[in-house]
Amino acid sequence: MSGNTFGKLFTVTTFGESHGLALGAIVDGCPPGLEISEADLQEDLDRRKPGTSRYTTQRKEPDQVKILSGVFEGKTTGTPIGLLIENTDQRSKDYSNIKDQFRPAHADYTYMQKYGVRDYRGGGRSSARETAMRVAAGSIAKKYLKQVAGIEVRGYLSQLGPIKIESVDWNEVHNNPFFCPDASKVTEMEDYMKALNKEGDSVGAKITVTATGMIPGLGEPIFDRLDADLAHGLMSINAVKGVEIGAGFDSVAQKGTEHRDEITPEGFLSNNAGGVLGGISSGQDLIAHLALKPTSSLHLPGRSVNVHGEPVEVVTKGRHDPCVGIRATPIAEAMMALTLMDHLLRHRAQNGGVEHNIPVIPAQADQ
Amino acid sequence: MSGNTFGKLFTVTTFGESHGLALGAIVDGCPPGLEISEADLQEDLDRRKPGTSRYTTQRKEPDQVKILSGVFEGKTTGTPIGLLIENTDQRSKDYSNIKDQFRPAHADYTYMQKYGVRDYRGGGRSSARETAMRVAAGSIAKKYLKQVAGIEVRGYLSQLGPIKIESVDWNEVHNNPFFCPDASKVTEMEDYMKALNKEGDSVGAKITVTATGMIPGLGEPIFDRLDADLAHGLMSINAVKGVEIGAGFDSVAQKGTEHRDEITPEGFLSNNAGGVLGGISSGQDLIAHLALKPTSSLHLPGRSVNVHGEPVEVVTKGRHDPCVGIRATPIAEAMMALTLMDHLLRHRAQNGGVEHNIPVIPAQADQ
Amino acid sequence: MSGNTFGKLFTVTTFGESHGLALGAIVDGCPPGLEISEADLQEDLDRRKPGTSRYTTQRKEPDQVKILSGVFEGKTTGTPIGLLIENTDQRSKDYSNIKDQFRPAHADYTYMQKYGVRDYRGGGRSSARETAMRVAAGSIAKKYLKQVAGIEVRGYLSQLGPIKIESVDWNEVHNNPFFCPDASKVTEMEDYMKALNKEGDSVGAKITVTATGMIPGLGEPIFDRLDADLAHGLMSINAVKGVEIGAGFDSVAQKGTEHRDEITPEGFLSNNAGGVLGGISSGQDLIAHLALKPTSSLHLPGRSVNVHGEPVEVVTKGRHDPCVGIRATPIAEAMMALTLMDHLLRHRAQNGGVEHNIPVIPAQADQ
Amino acid sequence: MSGNTFGKLFTVTTFGESHGLALGAIVDGCPPGLEISEADLQEDLDRRKPGTSRYTTQRKEPDQVKILSGVFEGKTTGTPIGLLIENTDQRSKDYSNIKDQFRPAHADYTYMQKYGVRDYRGGGRSSARETAMRVAAGSIAKKYLKQVAGIEVRGYLSQLGPIKIESVDWNEVHNNPFFCPDASKVTEMEDYMKALNKEGDSVGAKITVTATGMIPGLGEPIFDRLDADLAHGLMSINAVKGVEIGAGFDSVAQKGTEHRDEITPEGFLSNNAGGVLGGISSGQDLIAHLALKPTSSLHLPGRSVNVHGEPVEVVTKGRHDPCVGIRATPIAEAMMALTLMDHLLRHRAQNGGVEHNIPVIPAQADQ
Repeated sequence: MSGNTFGKLFTVTTFGESHGLALGAIVDGCPPGLEISEADLQEDLDRRKPGTSRYTTQRKEPDQVKILSGVFEGKTTGTPIGLLIENTDQRSKDYSNIKDQFRPAHADYTYMQKYGVRDYRGGGRSSARETAMRVAAGSIAKKYLKQVAGIEVRGYLSQLGPIKIESVDWNEVHNNPFFCPDASKVTEMEDYMKALNKEGDSVGAKITVTATGMIPGLGEPIFDRLDADLAHGLMSINAVKGVEIGAGFDSVAQKGTEHRDEITPEGFLSNNAGGVLGGISSGQDLIAHLALKPTSSLHLPGRSVNVHGEPVEVVTKGRHDPCVGIRATPIAEAMMALTLMDHLLRHRAQNGGVEHNIPVIPAQADQ
Repeated sequence: MSGNTFGKLFTVTTFGESHGLALGAIVDGCPPGLEISEADLQEDLDRRKPGTSRYTTQRKEPDQVKILSGVFEGKTTGTPIGLLIENTDQRSKDYSNIKDQFRPAHADYTYMQKYGVRDYRGGGRSSARETAMRVAAGSIAKKYLKQVAGIEVRGYLSQLGPIKIESVDWNEVHNNPFFCPDASKVTEMEDYMKALNKEGDSVGAKITVTATGMIPGLGEPIFDRLDADLAHGLMSINAVKGVEIGAGFDSVAQKGTEHRDEITPEGFLSNNAGGVLGGISSGQDLIAHLALKPTSSLHLPGRSVNVHGEPVEVVTKGRHDPCVGIRATPIAEAMMALTLMDHLLRHRAQNGGVEHNIPVIPAQADQ
Repeated sequence: MSGNTFGKLFTVTTFGESHGLALGAIVDGCPPGLEISEADLQEDLDRRKPGTSRYTTQRKEPDQVKILSGVFEGKTTGTPIGLLIENTDQRSKDYSNIKDQFRPAHADYTYMQKYGVRDYRGGGRSSARETAMRVAAGSIAKKYLKQVAGIEVRGYLSQLGPIKIESVDWNEVHNNPFFCPDASKVTEMEDYMKALNKEGDSVGAKITVTATGMIPGLGEPIFDRLDADLAHGLMSINAVKGVEIGAGFDSVAQKGTEHRDEITPEGFLSNNAGGVLGGISSGQDLIAHLALKPTSSLHLPGRSVNVHGEPVEVVTKGRHDPCVGIRATPIAEAMMALTLMDHLLRHRAQNGGVEHNIPVIPAQADQ
Repeated sequence: MSGNTFGKLFTVTTFGESHGLALGAIVDGCPPGLEISEADLQEDLDRRKPGTSRYTTQRKEPDQVKILSGVFEGKTTGTPIGLLIENTDQRSKDYSNIKDQFRPAHADYTYMQKYGVRDYRGGGRSSARETAMRVAAGSIAKKYLKQVAGIEVRGYLSQLGPIKIESVDWNEVHNNPFFCPDASKVTEMEDYMKALNKEGDSVGAKITVTATGMIPGLGEPIFDRLDADLAHGLMSINAVKGVEIGAGFDSVAQKGTEHRDEITPEGFLSNNAGGVLGGISSGQDLIAHLALKPTSSLHLPGRSVNVHGEPVEVVTKGRHDPCVGIRATPIAEAMMALTLMDHLLRHRAQNGGVEHNIPVIPAQADQ
């Protein structure tokens, strides 16, 4: 029960089903004095919004967010911020045929086993539509982190199916519908997606999300480590099947002399740690990678059973993303921002924001 | 602050430094009536214990656990269970030379930045020694899960540096000092470790942990999904840099038709999901993989700085595991067991343990 | 930070200011299958609603609640329930004169010291208006408790200023605007309130709230005792300055032989405990009393200071309840219901709803 | 389940039964740098310790506390502090006769209904013995509050059965075994207790606990108000049946003009609020009163039933306090200190300890 809250001091609680009346969230614990407007939130929401390219679902979700409380004369007051997005494009009839079916790789079966009932329209609560609220709440965290702490959270697509990026140019990320930071790969991705759409199949993706301008000292060992809470946040995103910090699974085959990030007074010489040592931020860039599985809603028939345990052939009609990873970058950014915001406040509780008199090692030696 | 508690209903709170007087834990929320003894806990502790083979640290830690409360006439009473392990082998002098150094890839620097002070003896709180308490607490969860719910949590080493296992024979896991389930790889691992010890270097590892006999319905979307809480638990283990559920990062290059686990009345036809759909257990085996970085305490010198910001060459003396992953299997099992136990109770709160009238799909079609 | 959530398993998180766009709440953890409609919630909201008699504020607050999620085809689905009340009667101009003043006995000064800013319109977040959301959420808990567990939560006014009730007739509670269960006192109360209104002064009140049909075993010692959590909930209501369980402060002068509730096989012989022993419900009626201070918004001038620290004479214009206690009964019921609901789920987590084989002592011997 | 933790950022988790091997606690979230020793904790423990006068139980409980972690070279390190008191004087045989009885007004019956089993020796977990750990943990909070924030938490006995104090002289509190601040009442109390002991009966008491040197701004509306969390903490103490803040139940009959604490630039003119407005500290003294019921363990026979539901006559042998309130002052102080400490950290998280530029009103005009 009651698993719809994220964070301990900076908390986000959400509600809403794909085809219900509205989605909403309460952001509790935002410090007072932050200038914030609906336009700030809308910017990130529009990045996540479907229907913006031919490679994402053609559903129209204006995702117009309203701030209902907690902001007075343009600034946060320290009281909870109520957020609301009214649902408008609800084609419930598209889903009536799968009412009694358990679509493979969907949450249909598990929701029924858990609750004994489910709102089957568009996946109900299990729809990725709920991530709109994460993005809206994350925007508040992102703005605070940037303005107050100088921390910037950004992400990009690092792999689309078999296509891996080879370089990162932050200026490219917003120049294509894939959040791809490598301009040389965009045409390949476009061709791949066209072929995939023709097939009727879907594909997975890998997202990388980072925080620069990091502060050392964030994270609360031994259980609420920064990396552990970040893994919680990222793995809670729909379709995510894996999370790495820094070198991640490459660490398995590394030797200690290779993995350890040596230090000079000029800075860290590498960042296999991904910015976290012992569960606490080191001041290096925080780096996480996440694996997203391919969309499970397919026009190609698949075997399953229905609520009576009988075999059925499932074909998902309706409009779906052929690669959920494409729109996942803003969601991953949101979860990293929410995690960092929570830990910024938790750390501040300890010493009132007063830094200790320990020399700060620059994030990178060559900066 | 206060990050030393894991779980929401079945909670484990721990204390203790590597070279302090004792390690301890409070397990709160264990249902009454479970038969449990110190011997039950000792069994898992002995599996994690160092000094049992030439491939692990030669420190002697008897790790003798005492149950101080919560058990009466051999059974749990529903009140909190106090656990204690007194420290005995504390060679503090080994560490005095690194008192003012920030060892690369250790938590020395980040603890200092966070707290302004640290118990430098043996890594203090950041030492993997604290995982003894996770293992002790995990044993209680494991026993309850098995006896009451029929769920069995087990793990093995799936990769040691470059050496990957090729088959899983559960009967082999306890026949070698690596928790390796593939007898054909043991000699290769032994040779690899001997060479590594000679070099003075260390290496990473990959652990796989599973739960069989799973119950569908465990997990609390959207944030406290079973996989998200599991990722939190596993990523909180020292040295872990990555967590995968089911197909994990392989999902990135999979197509939807390949990834989706089709269903027949006889059972699921594959398990790319790793037993979780929409954040809720499906009844399939729960499968997670974790990447552990190579030990950072090396006899080979590395560059770093000291607390005054001056460059130093660090050589870690003392006795250390050349591969922390080797002893990590019982710890990973503990974190999965604690996560499942918490979710079993959370789910039970919802419907009082009454299952809904939904046909149960067998975990695997060929069983 | 983040103090706007009540409960651990059945959680209520609220937002909204007196003169903001809307009030809202998210009820997370409601088990699936409960029939619930907006009308169910409206019934309690209308009991709390101002403007229903000459003894309460004449503000018009229709308090029309909308259920935005978590209910499908008339029943709860186990997913979070979003609630919304749009604000309509916002006479902000009434409050502009007190923008820079700290009204005595209000939260003006403390909110400014805490947050450095406040929404001064109608008291902003500190207004009792937020209790509407408690009542709406409490209605869901009340309905579940009654239907599933047979527990009924009800309250009444037990004292209005100097006027104490002498008998309790539940059928009378709804026959007068005071929630007074003693018909013989209603005229006296009416006269008292008329005189008070003429004076321009306000007065305190005492509310009694009870749960009948109680289940033994609810409460989680040693900190989350049922009585402790109930005290938390009741003391969190605006204007409450005291909470008693059972004999309460009368226990101070009682002797042990008098206070202890003796037991026979036919039932408990008295109820000084108020239904709680050792922090766990005994099955006797749960009984709590709460003291509400007199309204602080007065037409009679009072001394205070303004935001510049200068002395000012404060006169509160606008429309206010001369006795906030009069409308507090539904709010107290809500907080008791929310507390019980949370503990019902917490207890259920332990044993799956299975009762132990211990003879149940009837609540009262003479039943 | 899992109700043995108090606090959100500064948390105390305890274990231990009256006649088990040991009592213990983990204090998590204590900021680093606080000088603390076992002697600091022992001072308060000795104030609570039984057997120090003829008016308390004659059990010998040396209550020698050990600090097992979290303190290095005399100062806290920010890691969890493990505390342990080994039990020594365990006369289990005294209690065997009540093994199958439900003593009236004890937790015997409710523990059995909740857990189906209980450690009946000395009341097990429901014994007031667990409060030793609250006192030990509270000492850490008290020291931090005093040294870092200038807040002093102190308490006294304000009523013993029918005997009310008439004046408060803090210097007297430690001059008598009752924590009585009114020297003129001590002889009367002594005579009363002698007569009571002769009778074999017990009596209730009222305790007052205060914090001076308060900081404005502590408390997190709307649910985690300072007064609500304080009520939670105080009501969680064994035998407490009522909690008041400031004027408490006297507020019921007060008029608004009487209750509201007027303000001048020189300070507040009264303190009916008890230091809390809108759930946030005002900087005035924090004042709470608590009612403790008479001890239920009596040598005078009482009617009850046994575990088979049969009528029995209960006589409690063994050594018991005739008035549990006498030793409750340090416990009440501990719970107030723990509550304040938690809120100090929570408030600090918001603004990093930076105070807003709002003029501070002195606690009292005549200071």
